[in-house]
Amino acid sequence: MQQIIELLAVVFSALYGVLLARRLKLDFVGVYSLAFIVAFGGGTLRDLFLDRHPLFWIGAPHYPVIVFGMSIVAFFLPPLSEHTERSLNIPDALGFSFFSVSGAAAALAEGAPVFIAAMMGAVTGTFGGVIADTLCNRIPSLFRPSTPLYATCSFVGALLYIALKELPAIKPVAAPIAVAFIFLFRLAALRFDWRLPAYSDGSTDAPDDDLTA
Amino acid sequence: MQQIIELLAVVFSALYGVLLARRLKLDFVGVYSLAFIVAFGGGTLRDLFLDRHPLFWIGAPHYPVIVFGMSIVAFFLPPLSEHTERSLNIPDALGFSFFSVSGAAAALAEGAPVFIAAMMGAVTGTFGGVIADTLCNRIPSLFRPSTPLYATCSFVGALLYIALKELPAIKPVAAPIAVAFIFLFRLAALRFDWRLPAYSDGSTDAPDDDLTA
Amino acid sequence: MQQIIELLAVVFSALYGVLLARRLKLDFVGVYSLAFIVAFGGGTLRDLFLDRHPLFWIGAPHYPVIVFGMSIVAFFLPPLSEHTERSLNIPDALGFSFFSVSGAAAALAEGAPVFIAAMMGAVTGTFGGVIADTLCNRIPSLFRPSTPLYATCSFVGALLYIALKELPAIKPVAAPIAVAFIFLFRLAALRFDWRLPAYSDGSTDAPDDDLTA
Repeated sequence: MQQIIELLAVVFSALYGVLLARRLKLDFVGVYSLAFIVAFGGGTLRDLFLDRHPLFWIGAPHYPVIVFGMSIVAFFLPPLSEHTERSLNIPDALGFSFFSVSGAAAALAEGAPVFIAAMMGAVTGTFGGVIADTLCNRIPSLFRPSTPLYATCSFVGALLYIALKELPAIKPVAAPIAVAFIFLFRLAALRFDWRLPAYSDGSTDAPDDDLTA
Repeated sequence: MQQIIELLAVVFSALYGVLLARRLKLDFVGVYSLAFIVAFGGGTLRDLFLDRHPLFWIGAPHYPVIVFGMSIVAFFLPPLSEHTERSLNIPDALGFSFFSVSGAAAALAEGAPVFIAAMMGAVTGTFGGVIADTLCNRIPSLFRPSTPLYATCSFVGALLYIALKELPAIKPVAAPIAVAFIFLFRLAALRFDWRLPAYSDGSTDAPDDDLTA
Repeated sequence: MQQIIELLAVVFSALYGVLLARRLKLDFVGVYSLAFIVAFGGGTLRDLFLDRHPLFWIGAPHYPVIVFGMSIVAFFLPPLSEHTERSLNIPDALGFSFFSVSGAAAALAEGAPVFIAAMMGAVTGTFGGVIADTLCNRIPSLFRPSTPLYATCSFVGALLYIALKELPAIKPVAAPIAVAFIFLFRLAALRFDWRLPAYSDGSTDAPDDDLTA
């Protein structure tokens, strides 16, 4: 079950990365690199933090080959419909839903306490996209003033997964339930524009003043 | 003593991160992420480089909880005074002063030679901010044309700490002395605008030409 | 032989970093940091991914000292000629040619399969520059719409090296042959503007629309 969750996480995250790279009109190296980073970036950070070796994509070498194959296939896909922007949200949400649960499960297996394991779930789910955005010189949604719930869905869903695992009756289906919960939570946040309140320190300067001396 | 230094490093760095994130008008996820990265980023790099596990914030799980709590409390703080920009320099300087010494001490404990240990001190002190700036799409001061002394204070102070540790009479207070030295050195650099000379290669092009083919 | 290849990789990559930093008119801290990241960034990622400790620049502490010395010497260099931009391509190409082979060799020594080893060669060669570009708020060539072949030369050359090593007659000179191949391949790509075809998804929006919600 864990392996299926992780495989689906890789496939959907790589799909998101490939579609995003196509939209940025990159060449094959750019498409493969972006898909690779979105698919493996978050889990790599988790594995490095938890000293978990070999890294999940080195221990399962078919993962990079799958992403390589998807990158090649993507070259021959027909143009997408007009609603490209909204359609990218779906594979993105699927990818991070699967990775949030997969990441939390991996952290628990390493003996991490609950708070750290839920954080590792959120990192595994979201940081591939954060790293990819940063390398493409875009500000990750994590660091832009209040955007629709993203990491919140990931973290809450990871906590839900950890809690459900404690109930012997539900344990076998804890993972699919949590994945579905995160995915639907994210879709609802996009649909109804749910946001966390923005902080303010009362300053009137534009929020992107350079503050480091 | 080492544990107190490290705790103060985490608290002041997280305070700087939280105040900066408030100024950028982020939401709770952004505030917590920024504070987390500023507080734990440099030390995480040091621990990964030196293969030191568990990471210092995983081995001491109250650290992330402290940062989490500070992020929540920060939501209810009143607006800051007019001089927000200058006031951010103080917690930033305190944070990296404590982390420079704490980072060098950790490196020495792993058997690193003096030059590497002093570098690890500077990395621990400054790279949390470097990573946070990069994720927010700001150029870290490290990579902007000549700015007031920052990493220099860190590195010199780390060297001072390593030297003082060799003197049995001073060894018990080597850490506080070095921390105070770095902090005062940094304050003086800001006050008197001390800078390293900028390099030049004689070109007349704007310094941000794109040079990679 | 391996040690000579790695040393030359460090020297040429650091030379490229120093020249680039001079052009950006940074101060000593910026020059040393940029040279350090370009020289050691890719290999550090490889060592972290493969759990190879101590890191190659910690196990060989003369490396950071060499880069430190080059950064100091660079301050006293006379202004470069008019053709600065093109001349930076040469040390860049030499650096990543040596690192691609050195990186693949290190990965093979850790037992990595062929595809992963060739990828590690490409990462070791190119990611120092990717990290440095990102920290300076420049988009790495990897993620810009179709640019002259860069990582392709690295990956193909790493595969060539891995293949040549299997032939007992050629094995002792496999490394220099592969290095020369990558270097000449890259020079030809620059001279004749060889590029991979860009992907397209048929959208008419500017390629840098913000797509993450």
